Amino acid sequence: MIVEKLALVGTGLIGGSFALALKQAGAVRTVLGVGRNPASLDAAIERGLIDRAVDWAEAGQADCILLALPVGETAAVLKNLVPHLKAGAIVTDAGSTKVNVVVTARAELGDRFADFVPGHPIAGSEQSGPAAARADLYRGKKVVLTPQADTRAAAFATVKALWEAAGAQVETLDAGLHDRVFAAVSHLPHLAAFALVDELAQRADGDTFFRFAASGFRDFTRIAGSSPEMWRDIALANREALLTELDAYVAALQALRSAVSAVDAEALLAIFSRAREARNHWIRTQP
Amino acid sequence: MIVEKLALVGTGLIGGSFALALKQAGAVRTVLGVGRNPASLDAAIERGLIDRAVDWAEAGQADCILLALPVGETAAVLKNLVPHLKAGAIVTDAGSTKVNVVVTARAELGDRFADFVPGHPIAGSEQSGPAAARADLYRGKKVVLTPQADTRAAAFATVKALWEAAGAQVETLDAGLHDRVFAAVSHLPHLAAFALVDELAQRADGDTFFRFAASGFRDFTRIAGSSPEMWRDIALANREALLTELDAYVAALQALRSAVSAVDAEALLAIFSRAREARNHWIRTQP
Repeated sequence: MIVEKLALVGTGLIGGSFALALKQAGAVRTVLGVGRNPASLDAAIERGLIDRAVDWAEAGQADCILLALPVGETAAVLKNLVPHLKAGAIVTDAGSTKVNVVVTARAELGDRFADFVPGHPIAGSEQSGPAAARADLYRGKKVVLTPQADTRAAAFATVKALWEAAGAQVETLDAGLHDRVFAAVSHLPHLAAFALVDELAQRADGDTFFRFAASGFRDFTRIAGSSPEMWRDIALANREALLTELDAYVAALQALRSAVSAVDAEALLAIFSRAREARNHWIRTQP
Repeated sequence: MIVEKLALVGTGLIGGSFALALKQAGAVRTVLGVGRNPASLDAAIERGLIDRAVDWAEAGQADCILLALPVGETAAVLKNLVPHLKAGAIVTDAGSTKVNVVVTARAELGDRFADFVPGHPIAGSEQSGPAAARADLYRGKKVVLTPQADTRAAAFATVKALWEAAGAQVETLDAGLHDRVFAAVSHLPHLAAFALVDELAQRADGDTFFRFAASGFRDFTRIAGSSPEMWRDIALANREALLTELDAYVAALQALRSAVSAVDAEALLAIFSRAREARNHWIRTQP
């Protein structure tokens, strides 16, 4: 048992899978859920993700509270939670951006900020909601924690232990580096997939295009099935890093365009060969 | 039995899978292979993709000859084949672009052009070579044929019957429309995936980025593992349509960039929501 009572703010894929894994590992005794959507809380109870739905006052009495909802809701949630936070309660989050979450948490938590452990599980799915939660979602996956200089060591250790009990491998990163890295390898690809699909869908003859799309298109665009609200929040929360990545990507596409336009077979072969080699190397080093 | 003797020019994934499926269906008796690479021909024999390796003179005596190699090699292959082509032999191809293959085939085949049936199986994999060939590669997949006004009806019917025997669903398209559609749903995504991976790989600190890349990145970039030579040829063979698609895609990315830059939450939500809806609709209508 790592903590007696865990509270989830947000009982969807991310929070629900965390709770399922911890229950299965015997790392928590009771899981409470709080959220705006009664149907979602009912579904979470029905699926065994939480033991019961509670209000902010009761959630604040938990030993550890996980925020697992779009990062744009962090401030509002903390405003609700802070007045009820018991002494020693640890707050952590699962947001896909970290700098803006840290800034928000510092502002809202005040002298309780030392009990806040910023986190980001690198696992997910284009599925969302309580029905998508699975006990093995985090098994073998990375979770990045971005503790600050004033984060309490015991709080960090507890959150780390919880993620490890859920089967994850915990890594520590500077929050700014975290945001730059994920802008490049996650946020940009999501925007690029959304942009491609929407551009085709907006065409008058779009149906003809989709009719012949096949497995390459399916995989390239899988992440365009992700939650629009979540990705709107991420894009805005990580705006600066994302703009830098968008510019780098457009420049890379323009370089490819120049090579195609100039019938520069060598340049194309060089880019494609380097990309294949880099991707194959990456795949070989994946666990 | 649809044809006695089939000859493959190129005995890799595409040609080899065609031959395996047709043998399994009893649609061909003998499969001959011709190619520049003796090791590849040996592997094709060993795996039962072809019965034996032959020279151009013997390949020209087959009833049907499939060109299954990068489209940039079409002219050279036809120059070798044409002097040996027996009366009534049907030539077909599996190239990913069609207008330039039709132009090349018309120039090289002269008055035998009526026996040429341009084709494009919409199946594949980022794997290539004889070892990747599978009898079920085309099962339930589309094959697009782009016959011309002067294509012999009997030649078209035979090639259609062969693909159907291999389990595919045959569709007919205008060659120009084919190239525009595949520029958008296949060629552009491949270039976009290559560009993204290469841009990261070129960074001095690229390893840090790849280290945290996860399943979204994996699927988005799967097609960056594809054959560089094949995609160089496709990019150049379908240059005009591809440039148009690259411009449309960059414009869509710039529109997203503007929305992120202007913190336009509504515009982002609209684009992401439309994209998710279009993709989910597409997935539901896939066989």
